[in-house]
Amino acid sequence: MNIGMVRYVTARLLQIEALLLLFPLIVSFIYQETLRHKMSFIIVIIILVLLGQLFSWKKPKNKRLTPREGFVIVALSWVLFSFFGGLPFVFNGDIPSLVDAFFETSSGFTTTGSSILVDVEALAHSSLFWRSFTHLTGGMGILAFALAVLPQMDSQSVNIMKAETPGPTFGKLVSKLSSSARILYIIYLAMTATVVILLLLGGMELFDALLHAFATAGTGGFGVRNGSIAPYQNPYIEWVISFGMLAFGVNFNLYYLILIGQAKQIFKSEELKWYLLIVIGAVGLISLNIGGTYTSISKLIRDVFFSVSSVITTTGFSTADFGTWPLFSQMVLLLLMFIGGSAGSTAGGLKISRIVIYGKIFIAEIKRVAQPNRIVTIQYDRKPLSKVVKHAVSNYFVIYMVLFTILVMLISLDAPDFLTAFSAVAATFNNIGPGIGAVGPAFSFVELSDFSKVLLSFGMLAGRLEIFPILILFAPRTWKR
Amino acid sequence: MNIGMVRYVTARLLQIEALLLLFPLIVSFIYQETLRHKMSFIIVIIILVLLGQLFSWKKPKNKRLTPREGFVIVALSWVLFSFFGGLPFVFNGDIPSLVDAFFETSSGFTTTGSSILVDVEALAHSSLFWRSFTHLTGGMGILAFALAVLPQMDSQSVNIMKAETPGPTFGKLVSKLSSSARILYIIYLAMTATVVILLLLGGMELFDALLHAFATAGTGGFGVRNGSIAPYQNPYIEWVISFGMLAFGVNFNLYYLILIGQAKQIFKSEELKWYLLIVIGAVGLISLNIGGTYTSISKLIRDVFFSVSSVITTTGFSTADFGTWPLFSQMVLLLLMFIGGSAGSTAGGLKISRIVIYGKIFIAEIKRVAQPNRIVTIQYDRKPLSKVVKHAVSNYFVIYMVLFTILVMLISLDAPDFLTAFSAVAATFNNIGPGIGAVGPAFSFVELSDFSKVLLSFGMLAGRLEIFPILILFAPRTWKR
Repeated sequence: MNIGMVRYVTARLLQIEALLLLFPLIVSFIYQETLRHKMSFIIVIIILVLLGQLFSWKKPKNKRLTPREGFVIVALSWVLFSFFGGLPFVFNGDIPSLVDAFFETSSGFTTTGSSILVDVEALAHSSLFWRSFTHLTGGMGILAFALAVLPQMDSQSVNIMKAETPGPTFGKLVSKLSSSARILYIIYLAMTATVVILLLLGGMELFDALLHAFATAGTGGFGVRNGSIAPYQNPYIEWVISFGMLAFGVNFNLYYLILIGQAKQIFKSEELKWYLLIVIGAVGLISLNIGGTYTSISKLIRDVFFSVSSVITTTGFSTADFGTWPLFSQMVLLLLMFIGGSAGSTAGGLKISRIVIYGKIFIAEIKRVAQPNRIVTIQYDRKPLSKVVKHAVSNYFVIYMVLFTILVMLISLDAPDFLTAFSAVAATFNNIGPGIGAVGPAFSFVELSDFSKVLLSFGMLAGRLEIFPILILFAPRTWKR
Repeated sequence: MNIGMVRYVTARLLQIEALLLLFPLIVSFIYQETLRHKMSFIIVIIILVLLGQLFSWKKPKNKRLTPREGFVIVALSWVLFSFFGGLPFVFNGDIPSLVDAFFETSSGFTTTGSSILVDVEALAHSSLFWRSFTHLTGGMGILAFALAVLPQMDSQSVNIMKAETPGPTFGKLVSKLSSSARILYIIYLAMTATVVILLLLGGMELFDALLHAFATAGTGGFGVRNGSIAPYQNPYIEWVISFGMLAFGVNFNLYYLILIGQAKQIFKSEELKWYLLIVIGAVGLISLNIGGTYTSISKLIRDVFFSVSSVITTTGFSTADFGTWPLFSQMVLLLLMFIGGSAGSTAGGLKISRIVIYGKIFIAEIKRVAQPNRIVTIQYDRKPLSKVVKHAVSNYFVIYMVLFTILVMLISLDAPDFLTAFSAVAATFNNIGPGIGAVGPAFSFVELSDFSKVLLSFGMLAGRLEIFPILILFAPRTWKR
């Protein structure tokens, strides 16, 4: 492997994280926080700048980036971003434990939203801001920054994008990748700004509106108040966030199509169709199941739609406590946690496109077994699905479940019961945040051991990066020159 | 579909079930049971003979059996065997509910061993005998009988065998299928007889020895006493059954190789190697995990080995109550439940051969993603694994999990909690019998609703027949001429 190039790019990316840390530092000044709070960010900024200089001093001779280097840069950067991004919390005392801080920041960057905090409201403004800001940047991915630091464009960065973009396939919108990426980031930031404005119109303070918009955009779920969105007691805000989460769970390429006036094209998207059908189906099933306990039908629909939207997009905000709903409703939500949002969105899970393909494989295999001589083809987006994609999607499920099982086995070494072990892994590996049952919205991951926290942090990273980059990081072969 | 042929063969197979029912009838006479008990078997025998005559009266003109007819005959016969096989219990009053009787008999034929009975010891000898005898015949499969009733041999019955034999591939031992099958059945029955003799030598009564040998051979798990094997308090018997279960979880083709003096060949079997390694690994891990609670190391190993052997072969006999073991040990057992025994054995689960291939896909995919230009081949049994088998195995996992999820969702409509729903499906779909946690060895499925019982019965049948035959039965297309 071209270790020189990995070292150089990763070092430059750490300096980008130093730039990102200027934002919470500014917040710290605005809210006139203690010197310790300001210094905690300044120290980490200095560390990152120095480390970045040190490791990028010697420029690599060979500037080639194969997919393998792409994967390693992405995985390494995400781990290091999470580690160094957690240091301010340790230094300012808001999260004294290094492991807890790593967990919280991994959870932020991977847009998971699982928290080791019991009392969010006790945090300083700068800490709260940084915590939610990691959702916004994590949703964009390091590609946004890699484009700025990579010595050569396009042919190199395509391997970063492949390693980081969720979903079975990825498409470039325009022939030049860097232009594609810029268009997507503009859409992403414009949509985030829209959520901020809509929340402000609902009477939310600017600080809260910004942070909730970051968490909605990244489909992360870190909140500002204990009790997530419920304490605002504001139906308008709940609707804005419900639709906001749903919008960020859509493949961003579709927004680009609307932007260039090809809105008709989006009706051809099978993934969008199934995404909406699944949401409508889940809202319908749960409403029927719990309808009897509500007196107001508008509150029923609002609560159910919010929960479904939050869970399928793997955001993890909550208004109603669905832990008290009947088992069937909880099972529908549990299923949505594994389904997740669309490919090419910020949402986690297996992704709608894969689920649709699994459904089609299910039907095709039954046909094939019944009539071995018949040729059964799978159509996707009105085109025959290539064998390469079909097998990659099928194999991904095997890999996903093998890793899921390994994580549950390891967590069970010190989890109190099966449900906690299963839910904790499901909630982190799918980048949801709070799970159901034992690790529901009221649960704090602080109760787990350090071993479990580190393991789940890597689970979150593996889930966000769709497994391969993180696994390749641990393969001994990777580190041979 | 050639419905005439399906009708004819299925009708003749029902007459075979009438023959099988003569055995418990004889037991009923030996133990001088009430007239009602004797009549319950006689009535069902008469019904089956008449139905068989009625539907096989008109011989089919077209005698062709495609794979599809093979699948439908197998699925239909298993469902009907379970239904009619349950009637004696209803008529003699031992299991008054028709749904309960169907559940218990499906559980018997599929060698699952899940029971709706709370007090096994209250059953008449003939009922107990028939219940365990279904394990023995279910382990053999209807192929044994189909060979006797099929008008033409081999080219036809190969489709029955394909539909019924577990595992990703199946091999004929000798060129003529009927000869292959006969050799396997002789081995099967000889091994069962060996277990009977070994149990008699341990001081077990003949009746108990026969029934336990049937349940061991079929890796079913129906017992004779409340509390399974524990009440015998006999270490020798526990060892005999432990090794017995393990032996019936091996691919029977390997025994054939020993028989014809090619014992060396079995060392080439990857499945056997991994089967034994997994058993040794599981025994080691659990022993380390619970070792502290035992004073006698021989009792520790005996309890752990018995549990591991019982669970991996999906038998479901129990001596120690592993529900009280630490979570990690229970998770190891839960994992074994999904792994199951070898292909071509009577054990359920996903099968060792598939698990090994999943592990190899896991490693191969990581290599492939890291180096897209490298050609990664998977070796199995020292030969390159064909793409067809690899994709079939990979797709099977998707289908298995889709069906598993659907079953859990439906059961959750009236299960009390997640663990019960999950364990009940895991225990039945994998043909284990008792699960862990809420549906542990002390649990009786009688507490579930009729809807759940029927659903789980089909789950057991789908698990035993590896899904496709049962699904094809429900496809509307199947019933078009």
